[in-house]
Parts: sequence; C-alpha cells; structure tokens
Amino acid sequence: MATNGDEVVVSNKQVILKNFVNGFPKESDMYLNTTGSISLRVEQGSNAVIIKNLYLSCDPYMRNRMKLSDDPEFATYPPGSPIEGFGVGKVVESGYPELKKGDLVWGVTGWEEYTLIKNPQTLFKINHTDVPLSYYTGILGMPGITAWAGFYEICAPKKGEYVYISAASGAVGQLVGQFAKLFGCYVVGSAGSEEKVELLKKKFGFDDAFNYKEEHDLDAALKRRFPQGIDIYFENVGGKMLDAVLLNMRTCGRIAACGMISQYNLENPEGVHNLMNIVTKRIRFQGLLAFDYFPQYAKFLQVVLPSVREGKVVYVEDVAEGLENAPAALIGLFSGRNVGKQVVVVARE
Amino acid sequence: MATNGDEVVVSNKQVILKNFVNGFPKESDMYLNTTGSISLRVEQGSNAVIIKNLYLSCDPYMRNRMKLSDDPEFATYPPGSPIEGFGVGKVVESGYPELKKGDLVWGVTGWEEYTLIKNPQTLFKINHTDVPLSYYTGILGMPGITAWAGFYEICAPKKGEYVYISAASGAVGQLVGQFAKLFGCYVVGSAGSEEKVELLKKKFGFDDAFNYKEEHDLDAALKRRFPQGIDIYFENVGGKMLDAVLLNMRTCGRIAACGMISQYNLENPEGVHNLMNIVTKRIRFQGLLAFDYFPQYAKFLQVVLPSVREGKVVYVEDVAEGLENAPAALIGLFSGRNVGKQVVVVARE
Repeated sequence: MATNGDEVVVSNKQVILKNFVNGFPKESDMYLNTTGSISLRVEQGSNAVIIKNLYLSCDPYMRNRMKLSDDPEFATYPPGSPIEGFGVGKVVESGYPELKKGDLVWGVTGWEEYTLIKNPQTLFKINHTDVPLSYYTGILGMPGITAWAGFYEICAPKKGEYVYISAASGAVGQLVGQFAKLFGCYVVGSAGSEEKVELLKKKFGFDDAFNYKEEHDLDAALKRRFPQGIDIYFENVGGKMLDAVLLNMRTCGRIAACGMISQYNLENPEGVHNLMNIVTKRIRFQGLLAFDYFPQYAKFLQVVLPSVREGKVVYVEDVAEGLENAPAALIGLFSGRNVGKQVVVVARE
Repeated sequence: MATNGDEVVVSNKQVILKNFVNGFPKESDMYLNTTGSISLRVEQGSNAVIIKNLYLSCDPYMRNRMKLSDDPEFATYPPGSPIEGFGVGKVVESGYPELKKGDLVWGVTGWEEYTLIKNPQTLFKINHTDVPLSYYTGILGMPGITAWAGFYEICAPKKGEYVYISAASGAVGQLVGQFAKLFGCYVVGSAGSEEKVELLKKKFGFDDAFNYKEEHDLDAALKRRFPQGIDIYFENVGGKMLDAVLLNMRTCGRIAACGMISQYNLENPEGVHNLMNIVTKRIRFQGLLAFDYFPQYAKFLQVVLPSVREGKVVYVEDVAEGLENAPAALIGLFSGRNVGKQVVVVARE
C-alpha cells in the first residue's frame, strides 16, 4: 500500500477479457492482470463507492456479454477491461451517504480485488449476516430473485401441478425445485451428471430427476416422468430440450424462461420446431430477468430468509478459491463442471 | 323429398375427406358426395337438432384436422365422413328446448346441406339479423372472438403502442388491425399481394402495410416499418416471420398466437432460432384458441355489434358459391388465394 498525501494506492488484480468470444469460451479468452493498482480514495464531491470484492458470482448470462452485440440489456464487456458480474463486497470508502465504510453490499461489480462503483444506488446493503455471505450471489441475490419471481409470478403455480426444471441443480434451478415442492407441486428436474441427479433427489427433495446426457430421446424421457404432461416448465436451457418440453406441455401450461444456456456458445442458435404447441395448448411462454424484480427485493428477502434460516430451503454452492481461478470457474458453467451455484472467493473479509 | 310415414328424407350433398393429408392439401383430397340423404326428423327423446347449412367457414386450423394426430384439441376428421367447421344454419327440426324450427344458429357443423347436431348446446343462437348472416362465420363468430380476446386480453395493449399483424387481411388479422387502430395504436400489417396491401391501407386504415412476398429480408422489412421496435405482434404465420419479429420486439412486448399457417403443410415445421429474445426482452408469447372465450360471447357481441352497425369496423369476405366449390375455397387459404375471410354459401335461406 502506497500513501501519497491523502491518497492510498493498492495493487488490484483483475480478470481481463482479451477479446470478443465466438463459440465456446476458453480460459485463455481472459487473463489475470497482476500489475494494476487502484486508489482507495473517491474524488471530492463524487458519490462513488469503493468496495473490496469478497465473492464473485459466475452466471451463464455473462457469456452473452463476451460477444459483440448491440443488445442494451447485455452490454458487451469492453476487451481490455475487467469483466463484470454480481458479487458481494465490503465498502472501503464511500462518497454515498447511504453506505459507509465497513458496510457489506451486493450488486454488480468488477472481477478484481477492488472496484470503484460509480452508481452506488444499484448496490443492495446486506443487513443479515447470520447466513453465509456468499449466499448473496445466489439464493439471496440475483438467482434467488429469478427463481422466486419466475416461479411465483410468471408460472402462477397451483397446488398439485406438474413442474419440470432443466439445469435443475444450478443456481436458479435448485431453488425453483424447492419452492415448487414447498408449494405442493410434483417436481422433476434434469441435470448433466449422476452426482447432480442424486443431489436433486436426495438433497433438494425433487420427486424425480434424470441425467439428460443419458437420454437419447428427450421427448420419451419426459413422457416417462410426466405421463400426464407438464403444467410448468422452468426454462434454463433452450434448444432441443425446449422442443421436447413443448411436446409434453399440458393445456394452459406456463413456461418461465430466464436463460437458454445450451445456445450461448453456438454461432447460430438451434431451431425450435414445436412452437405450434403454444397455440394448440394455449401456453404462456414468458421471459424474465431478475432486475425487473429488484424493487421487490425487500419482500423477497422477507419470504426467503426465514426459509433459509429454518433449513426449509437449502443451497449448494461450488466454490472456487482465488481470482486466478475465476476464468476457469466461469467457463465451467458451459460444460456443466460446477455442482450447484458457482462462486469465486476473492477474499473472505 | 321423400316422406315415409312421419319420416322426411332429403338428399344431402356432402364434402368428404378421402384420406389423411400430408403436405399441401389438394382439392382431390376431398370429393363431393351427391348420393347421400338425411332424415329431417330427430329421434323421439333425443335433444338433437337438424340444421340446414347456409354459410360455411374456411379456417386455417382445419388443415390440422386433416392429418392423423392425437391432439385432442384438433381431432382428426375421419376419412370417408364429411369434414366439419364453423358455419351458420337454420334449424329445421329440434329436440332441444332452447332452439325451435326457423331459429338461426352458428357453431360447428358439417360440410353438407343438412347436419344432425347431437350436441346442440354448442350452438349459438343468432338474435341479430340486421347484419349479414355470413358475419357469424367471421367478425361475429370464431375469428371475431379470436381477434377480440387476442388483442384485448392477451396483448393487453396500451395507447400508442406499435402493433404488427401478419396475415393481416385474413379473417382475424383485419379485425385485430381495426381494433388496434380504434384503441390508438400504430398498426402495420403484412399480406401476400398488392391487392391485400391496398386493402389494409385503404379499407382497414392500417398506418402501413407490406407484401411479405416482395421482401427478401423480413428483419430489414420490419426494421424499416418499426425503427423503434414492435410492442405487440399478432401471430398468424409462424416460422421465418416469427423469427424476424423476435429480432424486432421491444422490451416487455407481447405476442398473441392464434395460428401458424405457414407451418401447417410442412412435414416438419421450420425451426425458430431467435427465441432467446424472449428472455432478454422479457416477452410474453401466448397462444389462444377462440373456444376458451366462448363463455364471453355475449359480452363480445355487446362491444363489437355496435361497431359493425356504425361502420367503425368493416369486414371483407371472399365468398365462394356452392358446396361444390368448398374444397377449392378451403385449399385457397394456404396459397393465400382468398382476399379477406373465406366463406362458402351453401344456401342463402
């Protein structure tokens, strides 16, 4: 740490995107810059905040920010800069009256040790620390709100309905399944390994689960698990899986789509052929992004936090240690290497 | 007419489906049976009704009933029997207390001169005859309810929103466009000929319209007409058109889908590639079938009938004369031969 008058400059390792990514992302699309530094002072009159990053969240949507795109919802990461994502941090300096040094926050931050946050109103202050802090990248953060809003608001469930979840052991899927079980639904999930399937059945209490990689005919696989059809599909995958699900939806079924991970690394997304089922079965297929529901965060926390404390809802994380392991952790999402929510620990306090 | 005691037997021409249809339907997939007859008496104790068919409705969904399918919503027409569809008829004999001889009705009937209706509770009694009777196959019948429920209930429009309608001069499209204009939306439609495009602009008051057959790049065609994007898409077409629309939808847009006529004659439906837009733009894509809204028919009529009488909503029909021309009229839907709602006159009274 170098002090220069009032200035405190510290070294600041960063995960930098080298260039736009086409196809399957590789660790080498990013690199760890160990030579950078950051001033831990905010400019006089600025309302910026500097946070020390503790936990970083690896989320599939980040793949969409690695490619050149004009999508305003998923602004392209500028090559040469640290990538961004959700994370948990500690305020080390604040020009923002609602946050003070030492406060814990979650929100969008940089993949680096320290981040200057110029729009601190986007940060959520963490008031409850009797649960693991990393949970604010998952069950108590963006994936949690996605699962909660997607299941309760978009899917509008009824007791006893048949619920199917793809990528079911992931950050969002494991929660949707547990919410649906607590609500009184019949819940089946799919995932990409036996270990994950066991987790779904044993740890998360799904009624049934299967390894989609072992199923040559997804339509048949779903028909076996849902002879009566699917009322609610929580879509995380897209492509062939969606096509098979459409064949198995029931009349007036609902599909909440928060992602289509199977498509992100394809130059051209797969074609989905069975959309006429949306008409004949009067299906509602609706997309959602968590940030539309951020204004309801307090309400969400009021519902979910007690369930976490009482152990009614559990959460499995896959924790990578150190910023240097962050690129591999992120890329692992797309091969399904992670078991549960993928988190990176930058520092524990 | 042959009388046999109490019995009155009349000849009854019928349009018969020869066999299940694969690919593009042909006139020769049906034939006119001129040798049949029907008794105009209902059995003692039966609540059946016999109607003389006046107007028959040609609707795209009927194609789906010509193929072998286990879809309960679109039961396959049994080959060797007359096909069925919506129509307007006059009651000639009734065992059903709520209908009497001479009453006019609309509902599902056979493609024949006379039909024995065994479930007369599915028929709607026509109480208003100051409008053309054929309108009960269109603006005041199934397509009308589809347009009304699809636009107002599914699309949940807001004044000033940008509305796009494919197959816009058809039975449903022309109504959706007029409803949207009356509601205060900006409305663009597409159709398959210059004549239809003129109709959209001049007769139905669309803000703009284009011939999709003249556009090599549908995405570019939509971008030119909707530089700011589409809030509401009324989907009648599917396939490539849907793919192009998805690229041009705005955030929180809505797609009401009542059919996908471009797909009905394909062995394998086209793949739709741009579904990820549903997630990123939080689009609601929802199917509808008119019969879910039949219980609201009285309310619908109360709203739409005055608009028809006052000329605020107009309706263009393409009228084929005679049951012998019904197969060609039905098939014409799939090449876009019809201009406006395709009706067949079996008898005028």
